[in-house]
Amino acid sequence: YHRLSIMLTRYSSGYSNNENKCLQKWNANGKMREKSLTMDTLNPQVKAVEYAVRGPIVTKAGDIERGLQQGQKHPFTEVIKANIGDSHAMGQKPITFLRQVVALCSFPELLDSSIFPDDAKQRARRILQGCGGQSLGSYSASQGVDCIRQDIAVYIEQRDKGVPADWDNIYLTTGASDGIVSILKMLVSGQGRSRSGVMIPIPQYPLYSAAISEMEAVQINYYLDEDNCWALDINELHRAYQAAKEHCHPRVICIINPGNPTGQVQSKKCIEEVLHFAYEENLFVMSDEVYQDNVYSPDCQFHSFKKVLYEMGPEYFNTVELASFHSTSKGYSGECGFRGGYMEVLNLDLEVKAQLVKLLSVRLCPPVSGQAAMDVIVNPPLPHEPSYLQFHKEKSAVLGALAEKAQMTEQILNTVPGIKCNPVQGAMYAFPRIFIPPRAVEEAMCVSLLLLEETGICLVPGSGFGQREGTYHFRMTILPTTEKLKVLLEKLRDFHIKFLKEYASLEEPKR
Amino acid sequence: YHRLSIMLTRYSSGYSNNENKCLQKWNANGKMREKSLTMDTLNPQVKAVEYAVRGPIVTKAGDIERGLQQGQKHPFTEVIKANIGDSHAMGQKPITFLRQVVALCSFPELLDSSIFPDDAKQRARRILQGCGGQSLGSYSASQGVDCIRQDIAVYIEQRDKGVPADWDNIYLTTGASDGIVSILKMLVSGQGRSRSGVMIPIPQYPLYSAAISEMEAVQINYYLDEDNCWALDINELHRAYQAAKEHCHPRVICIINPGNPTGQVQSKKCIEEVLHFAYEENLFVMSDEVYQDNVYSPDCQFHSFKKVLYEMGPEYFNTVELASFHSTSKGYSGECGFRGGYMEVLNLDLEVKAQLVKLLSVRLCPPVSGQAAMDVIVNPPLPHEPSYLQFHKEKSAVLGALAEKAQMTEQILNTVPGIKCNPVQGAMYAFPRIFIPPRAVEEAMCVSLLLLEETGICLVPGSGFGQREGTYHFRMTILPTTEKLKVLLEKLRDFHIKFLKEYASLEEPKR
Repeated sequence: YHRLSIMLTRYSSGYSNNENKCLQKWNANGKMREKSLTMDTLNPQVKAVEYAVRGPIVTKAGDIERGLQQGQKHPFTEVIKANIGDSHAMGQKPITFLRQVVALCSFPELLDSSIFPDDAKQRARRILQGCGGQSLGSYSASQGVDCIRQDIAVYIEQRDKGVPADWDNIYLTTGASDGIVSILKMLVSGQGRSRSGVMIPIPQYPLYSAAISEMEAVQINYYLDEDNCWALDINELHRAYQAAKEHCHPRVICIINPGNPTGQVQSKKCIEEVLHFAYEENLFVMSDEVYQDNVYSPDCQFHSFKKVLYEMGPEYFNTVELASFHSTSKGYSGECGFRGGYMEVLNLDLEVKAQLVKLLSVRLCPPVSGQAAMDVIVNPPLPHEPSYLQFHKEKSAVLGALAEKAQMTEQILNTVPGIKCNPVQGAMYAFPRIFIPPRAVEEAMCVSLLLLEETGICLVPGSGFGQREGTYHFRMTILPTTEKLKVLLEKLRDFHIKFLKEYASLEEPKR
Repeated sequence: YHRLSIMLTRYSSGYSNNENKCLQKWNANGKMREKSLTMDTLNPQVKAVEYAVRGPIVTKAGDIERGLQQGQKHPFTEVIKANIGDSHAMGQKPITFLRQVVALCSFPELLDSSIFPDDAKQRARRILQGCGGQSLGSYSASQGVDCIRQDIAVYIEQRDKGVPADWDNIYLTTGASDGIVSILKMLVSGQGRSRSGVMIPIPQYPLYSAAISEMEAVQINYYLDEDNCWALDINELHRAYQAAKEHCHPRVICIINPGNPTGQVQSKKCIEEVLHFAYEENLFVMSDEVYQDNVYSPDCQFHSFKKVLYEMGPEYFNTVELASFHSTSKGYSGECGFRGGYMEVLNLDLEVKAQLVKLLSVRLCPPVSGQAAMDVIVNPPLPHEPSYLQFHKEKSAVLGALAEKAQMTEQILNTVPGIKCNPVQGAMYAFPRIFIPPRAVEEAMCVSLLLLEETGICLVPGSGFGQREGTYHFRMTILPTTEKLKVLLEKLRDFHIKFLKEYASLEEPKR
């Protein structure tokens, strides 16, 4: 307990101000040369931003890692980072075909080399022909390279069994985050009670809350149903909407499917209900579908919001404004570092569309090598092509291992007293609930730090994603190798059991 | 004249509203299902953003280009895009060594191949060792890959003849734009008369005005002195500052050196004056130095703001808050598509620094292949290494050709009656002044469109960058190949002479 209190003090105080003060100097006129930018003068919207996935616990993990390299002693030999969906950092190997195409695009002299298969060369040539001066080094159009947008449209049509996709509605982005922020930015307006409200699931991926803070929009929480495998409950949507209408103007609903951090896969019926609700209430729909390839549970299937909207008939399909997001970072490729992604928009007002292009054009273009990576994901080798077998083998291996780890995570966590974990139906995370003694509640935030210092396991506390008041969770990825993940889960179990015991003994004297 | 009026109507009306209206539908309750996002409900800050470098003229150029490919007839066979600093699109070849390193990082199997020189392999290994799982596909830290930040610090120390650089102050960015927007975002606060004011040069690169609009900061214009080769005049800074103090809180001064769109290179004395001014007035300094390698005039030399600050003594060097920006997009590499860049900050308050990292972390990380490209630029082959000769030859060829084209552009433009062009001392642009008859003034915006339709030349009107009232300019890049640039300049000359004649004949009857 004492340990925890010290940590609480240590980590909540932040930086000392002394170091700053001594940097202040007197200027030539004898006035104090004050800093122009201090915590007092910092943009308050920046101050309000929170992003736990890379917060202080992760910084601490980095410090410990560097310490280990320099020979410092810890009760473990390695930090296991289960805080972020970063597949390659956890040892997943890149998809060979994707990297071949990117290498060929980067150094086209390799197009003459016999090292590379013809289908990779063909993809690279197609991409380069779409680039100014046939170079990855030229800016693309703000919306992305034309032929890549066309490939994406073809991919979406195939994925959605023939629902038409127009490449004019496709925009390449710098990861999915960039697209999400851009669309939100368009939608935020008004002051006071007419300020835009953004409906987000709780728990959520903190990009949403961070962007909402930064833009001073109003965050409208709708709670996912933990007792029902984190399903979205339409009644809860209505409740949240009606309550929010009193103090803001709800304009947009965000859905993450499969869920992050909650790992649920939405049923078709649920999606229909959401879309009907958005139709009735004139809401813009943002569907974050970056985990569309990450579905593990045999009872679940990914349904795109767009396809469901189409099946609801033209009255819906021709009216509901929808933006959906995809990424190179997740799925089976896990290419986070390339910052590739795209969004598809539906039913956007034409003038608004021109405004969107203008907004995107200020940042010039998404990284072109990320666009190339996105192209491979939507346009993989076909069965008759030379790279097909290897590609298929690599893809299946990644997705197979993830499915196995999803199941193992749920199983082991549910053997721990005081931990309850829903099935990890999809995505890359478990978000188990932890039941902690009342006296431990104050230090709930610190438990993750203690876990890190004692075991080297880096997780993110549930508060970073949002949770019902009085409940406690953490998010962990299922990305470490099967062996490491098993070690992680067992260490976690032992830590939690020990933690509960310590508190039990502290509480006894009081009774 | 008639031609111009028609165009004015055609291009100023924008999209017709009819197409949108027919998309509105009645919903199940018999209410009209209105669009959630229209020009009326769009974020007004987004509406206010302007970015001419990729505005309607460029869109039109793209349309004409596609038309040409499909066999449409125009009075020219090719569109020459001199609107944007996009070197590779204009035929500049990538630096071999840079692309070898990026290809090796993308597909590390190539590290075993004899195609690549050892120094390229060594750079690639170093970069990969800094990446999680030794993969470009993992997220880097929000500030960028450690070893690349270290290489940048070493580069800055060498560039600045020993002025110390701490890699803890280096942040990789998604092009320079991303860094500039992030720093500005930190600095914007307050309402009404205490709202943050941002001093920017006029003419300026429109990223600045766009970001200021988007953040609802106050733009404070200081005018560069066109009669003195676009030099920055310290008296004009004082004037702008004093005037602005009446209605906002000036907090930051932005300088672009070498200048975009104006091509001037600042003298050391001028930089000293700016820094002294910033010191006295407690301003944050943002120095956009992305053209630091693009200095052509033998009388000019690049001085970094940081080095000059250092030489002014510790009273300045230890107090003035400075952020300087660099990029992979310009210089001799011209790697725009990689979206690489970095910023160095000085004297940032420690708590503010933590807030900056937090803000950057929401977008996870800059593209890692762009970081790799940045690394090569700051860490090129050394004289004893196998790639040195070729690298040096390629770099000199690019910079030599740019110097030649800078001179040619100025010379030819100054032979045209009614055009006056300052020397292009650096960067990649000329920003000549055009003198047009009073009756033509109304259509000044349209002249560029007419030029495009008649000659295929795509330029940006001066209004996109800002200019003194009653003066007219355009920005053109010097990036087309020497032969094409010559054709462009001659076409431009002929067009302008013809244009002046048409107006002269229109004005005569009135006299």
